[in-house]
Amino acid sequence: MGDIITSKDNPVIRHYRKLCENKRYRRTCQRFPAEGLRLVREAVAAECAETVLLTASVYEKYAGEFPGCVCISDELGRSIAETEHPQGLFCICRIPTLLSGEFPLRTDGRYLVTCDLQDPGNMGMILRTADALGIDAVFACKSCEVYSPKVVRATMGAVFRLPVYEMPDVGALSDALHEANIRSFAAVLHKDAKPVTECHLGKGCAVWIGNEGNGLSADAIEACGEKLIIPMQGNAESLNAAMAAGILMWEMMKAGDQ
Amino acid sequence: MGDIITSKDNPVIRHYRKLCENKRYRRTCQRFPAEGLRLVREAVAAECAETVLLTASVYEKYAGEFPGCVCISDELGRSIAETEHPQGLFCICRIPTLLSGEFPLRTDGRYLVTCDLQDPGNMGMILRTADALGIDAVFACKSCEVYSPKVVRATMGAVFRLPVYEMPDVGALSDALHEANIRSFAAVLHKDAKPVTECHLGKGCAVWIGNEGNGLSADAIEACGEKLIIPMQGNAESLNAAMAAGILMWEMMKAGDQ
Repeated sequence: MGDIITSKDNPVIRHYRKLCENKRYRRTCQRFPAEGLRLVREAVAAECAETVLLTASVYEKYAGEFPGCVCISDELGRSIAETEHPQGLFCICRIPTLLSGEFPLRTDGRYLVTCDLQDPGNMGMILRTADALGIDAVFACKSCEVYSPKVVRATMGAVFRLPVYEMPDVGALSDALHEANIRSFAAVLHKDAKPVTECHLGKGCAVWIGNEGNGLSADAIEACGEKLIIPMQGNAESLNAAMAAGILMWEMMKAGDQ
Repeated sequence: MGDIITSKDNPVIRHYRKLCENKRYRRTCQRFPAEGLRLVREAVAAECAETVLLTASVYEKYAGEFPGCVCISDELGRSIAETEHPQGLFCICRIPTLLSGEFPLRTDGRYLVTCDLQDPGNMGMILRTADALGIDAVFACKSCEVYSPKVVRATMGAVFRLPVYEMPDVGALSDALHEANIRSFAAVLHKDAKPVTECHLGKGCAVWIGNEGNGLSADAIEACGEKLIIPMQGNAESLNAAMAAGILMWEMMKAGDQ
């Protein structure tokens, strides 16, 4: 199997570990780490895989599938793993979409916008659901980082398939959606908002979801033309942000052909 | 403020800590711990609060709201806290519903059944969503424990409002649902299952959700009369179990008056 990397100070290992730990480094390098067979396969399929690392234990089994992969000792594998039961496969990935700037919008597209969403588990679940329900792109404005190990794991690979744009603010996005004739709906808990069951979330629309505790800011609500609410029947004050986003994306998917 | 408990060996503190750490002890005592202002208030409102503990820092602010509460030192508060930013309020709660045995079923009720659901975050999100969408009860069969600190936190208090029944197996539940003329739908990924958009999830129905990795067992599917699937448009293999449950409960709520 050729050379085996065994040193923690090997440049590739140091690079991988720093990508796991340091958000700014991920941003500077435009790279992020992925772990496990499923994610490594998705990274390769999406042509985002730059370097695949296999531990000695699994090298023989998978080296044929990942040409050019690098072999590392099992001990090193355990030291860089972030999951409870590491499978011995790791990958350094290129960030697949642009961070900001140009983004293509289709007049008949369906989009989700998150503003100030902070929980990585929620972000991961939103991206996984958006991918499953055929949303055209997700715009993450001032939200938690999309390429952190926790988010990437929670997406179950959706991060490699779905166009995701990280945006520093809502202004440019709001203008672009407006120009493309895409209607923006702010998901709120206000009593004067329209029940989603009465909205026409067909083609050419974007639903905006806000922060877990505080919802959408007044600025973001104003940037949207319309306000919608998910009618509830129980006693809870609100749905979890990812669940609300999921129900709204489901409604967008069902209305997709209208 | 009277006496302040300062010793880690005080019986109340040992009891609380053991309730946090030990599942079997929670089961034996039929008690579970809750932390934070919101959950403590919900526990009191649901008449599940047995002992409220307040740290010295917040005692003056909240003692009037919680008559009979016990004051503990700030240091002890930090030592028993399980959240990142503890608020200094803790509660020993009675498990509000029966673990098994008798349970009331309404012919026009709407129910969710989980089988082998293992992730506490998913369980918490399902209970929170069920409460918000007016589901009448959740039956947790061979699933992760409902009263663990992680699940209780994730429910945001729904665990105090929503009837939840933990069941050792599906047989008795399946029989009871059948007797009450409640239709059971197995949520699956099979191609021959009926799209949920074509099912009539009105009053008198129960949706069954399975394990995160393996879905419902063959036995559970057979116990249900019908199979349903959430149609997807994207590339993902499946939705997260809690998200799938949420979308199906939303469909049950919308069809609730039919």
